[in-house]
Amino acid sequence: MRDVAVIGIGMNKWGELWDISIRDLIAQSALLALDDADLNKVDAMYIGCMSSGLFTDQEHLGSIGPDYAGLCPTPGIRVESACSSGALAVRSAYMHIASGMSDIVMAVGVEKMTDVDGAGATFALASAADQEYEVYNGVTFPGLYSMMATHHMHKHGTTRDQLAQVAVKNHFNGAKNPLAQFRMELTIDAVKNAVMIADPLTILDCSPITDGSAAVILCSMDKAKEICKKRIVKVIGSGHATDSIQLAQREDISYIKSTELAAKQAFEMADKKVADIDFAEIHDCFTIAEIMVIEALGIVDKGKGGPATLDGMTAIDGKIPVNSSGGLKSKGHPVGATGVAQMVELTKQIRGEADKGRQVKKADIGLAQNMGGSGASSVVHILEGM
Amino acid sequence: MRDVAVIGIGMNKWGELWDISIRDLIAQSALLALDDADLNKVDAMYIGCMSSGLFTDQEHLGSIGPDYAGLCPTPGIRVESACSSGALAVRSAYMHIASGMSDIVMAVGVEKMTDVDGAGATFALASAADQEYEVYNGVTFPGLYSMMATHHMHKHGTTRDQLAQVAVKNHFNGAKNPLAQFRMELTIDAVKNAVMIADPLTILDCSPITDGSAAVILCSMDKAKEICKKRIVKVIGSGHATDSIQLAQREDISYIKSTELAAKQAFEMADKKVADIDFAEIHDCFTIAEIMVIEALGIVDKGKGGPATLDGMTAIDGKIPVNSSGGLKSKGHPVGATGVAQMVELTKQIRGEADKGRQVKKADIGLAQNMGGSGASSVVHILEGM
Repeated sequence: MRDVAVIGIGMNKWGELWDISIRDLIAQSALLALDDADLNKVDAMYIGCMSSGLFTDQEHLGSIGPDYAGLCPTPGIRVESACSSGALAVRSAYMHIASGMSDIVMAVGVEKMTDVDGAGATFALASAADQEYEVYNGVTFPGLYSMMATHHMHKHGTTRDQLAQVAVKNHFNGAKNPLAQFRMELTIDAVKNAVMIADPLTILDCSPITDGSAAVILCSMDKAKEICKKRIVKVIGSGHATDSIQLAQREDISYIKSTELAAKQAFEMADKKVADIDFAEIHDCFTIAEIMVIEALGIVDKGKGGPATLDGMTAIDGKIPVNSSGGLKSKGHPVGATGVAQMVELTKQIRGEADKGRQVKKADIGLAQNMGGSGASSVVHILEGM
Repeated sequence: MRDVAVIGIGMNKWGELWDISIRDLIAQSALLALDDADLNKVDAMYIGCMSSGLFTDQEHLGSIGPDYAGLCPTPGIRVESACSSGALAVRSAYMHIASGMSDIVMAVGVEKMTDVDGAGATFALASAADQEYEVYNGVTFPGLYSMMATHHMHKHGTTRDQLAQVAVKNHFNGAKNPLAQFRMELTIDAVKNAVMIADPLTILDCSPITDGSAAVILCSMDKAKEICKKRIVKVIGSGHATDSIQLAQREDISYIKSTELAAKQAFEMADKKVADIDFAEIHDCFTIAEIMVIEALGIVDKGKGGPATLDGMTAIDGKIPVNSSGGLKSKGHPVGATGVAQMVELTKQIRGEADKGRQVKKADIGLAQNMGGSGASSVVHILEGM
């Protein structure tokens, strides 16, 4: 396989963007990434988006994307795997270049979630779970993750304070990120005492509904060495695995097996171990998710995610900073955009371009973990600065 | 790029399949393709589907697919580009293998369209057009293609009989295809006198609403030579291009520029000319579409698609048989499945496995053209028997 590098990044300010349509969201980040890479075209464009159909009545983003970014007849392809759509857009762009088909390919992630009301958004998001066996019986995502949290607490003794600390830590970082949706700091008490959504998860344990997009431009390493004026960030590992879509069919509902398997692939490809990772962006769609994922990645042993979080291991100045961007919790979670935004954050950190107060001290090797549904699909990437 | 071959094909009987869910449709074709290739697993699975969200409330097919085909934790990725989603699943699988990431990758195309009523299907399909500037103003696909047909008739003198002949020819072939949805033969008069949908297009100028799936298994050539027991079918060309999603922004609304550009890429990659093609599967979503596409591919000169069709050039025993499968018109058009089914047909023909009465005499090199919306995206593949 040919070596591939990230040479451009772009991301708009996330939030409830009532006056910006999905096509404009795509164009905004695409143009920012082109500017960052000092380019005015790419050979192909991947668009990660979970459900533009249910959220905006608009499919065919593979045409809309190049069209509204002024890039026709550039081929555009939408890829979808629920909330891991963004990372799959990046992985697809990676393979497109590695195959030799093209040299420069953009991956955009996008979701426009506020064109429907709260019930509409809950319904659209539930299409990432098993409609016939889970959603039909009344469960939606807060309910699924509350079952995972309850099981984790029962099995491993994880505490309410440990869950809350994930939100506290990520909002501490996100407060310093001007592109984040919710920039307020939190306390453990604030999280615990917020309105209950699905016991034990309060609203401050949940990531928000967000409009947003993000883009990265990938390039063959040979070409990157010619044209990239910033620190070259190499894609050294990529992995992807699935699990049964239903929680009921998993061996252990409080362990994310698909993440373990995707990470294994990425580490093998990169010839690295978890101890080599300087920092990570992790899919904290609910506070319990980050705890389960740091266990599945091997950052901590099974069952030890809660105590490690409360002890500060994953804080911005900890042994392995997790979610320096603010994570999904504070930065926001426009589902299809999240995986691409993680790559934007990794690249910023590796280039030393992160905002004051959230730049990780040693940021040469970063890992991004993005997942779909309740962990039915996971994608892991590892980037290294050259 | 590594050479890639088709080593397995599968397709279920298409129609209004009230008792088969989208997950079972995927599994049916996937298992047929595994049987055909004499395999019990693949390294990855691409799923082409346009709008499982709007049709079935179920996204995340990248997880559902491997799960219900018994292939977890195989990574699954849904790709979408409206009605060209199927061909993009094949193209993505091609690049996945060409990159060296994996050796054996399945592409499944699927659409389950009858879980919603007629108005629901029209609404879901319209999400392939421009929602904000076209659909909002009341136009859906029959209306868009009727404008293209009217313009073609005005500009080139294309006649009502010539349009009808596309349907007559394709139903003649489809009547011999046991997997086709509508196996009746038609006459020009029957097409012209059928109920009017959008002048000049009657209901028999339109492809139907269909439930169905299709699957192909691609393999690196080195591995294919080891394990493939049938005639090896090599992917020699692949191209993909976009155009503005709105008809109003095109230079010429009765010419499919994206197909011309995608074909140019595929021919260059294959080092072939249009004269080298023995037969083709073409995206006849409406009768006018086939006429415009044979012009864009260079099979006939611009404006000559109508007369060539009426003269029998594209008949099963003509100079270049088009839609030996019955095309979208007779075989059916489960939108995300169509592009994969075209590859199934090309492979069947090249292997000499097509049904009696519709096997093309010389079938060594075949071309498939699949498009999204009113031609906002086009994908072209060329296959050759070894």
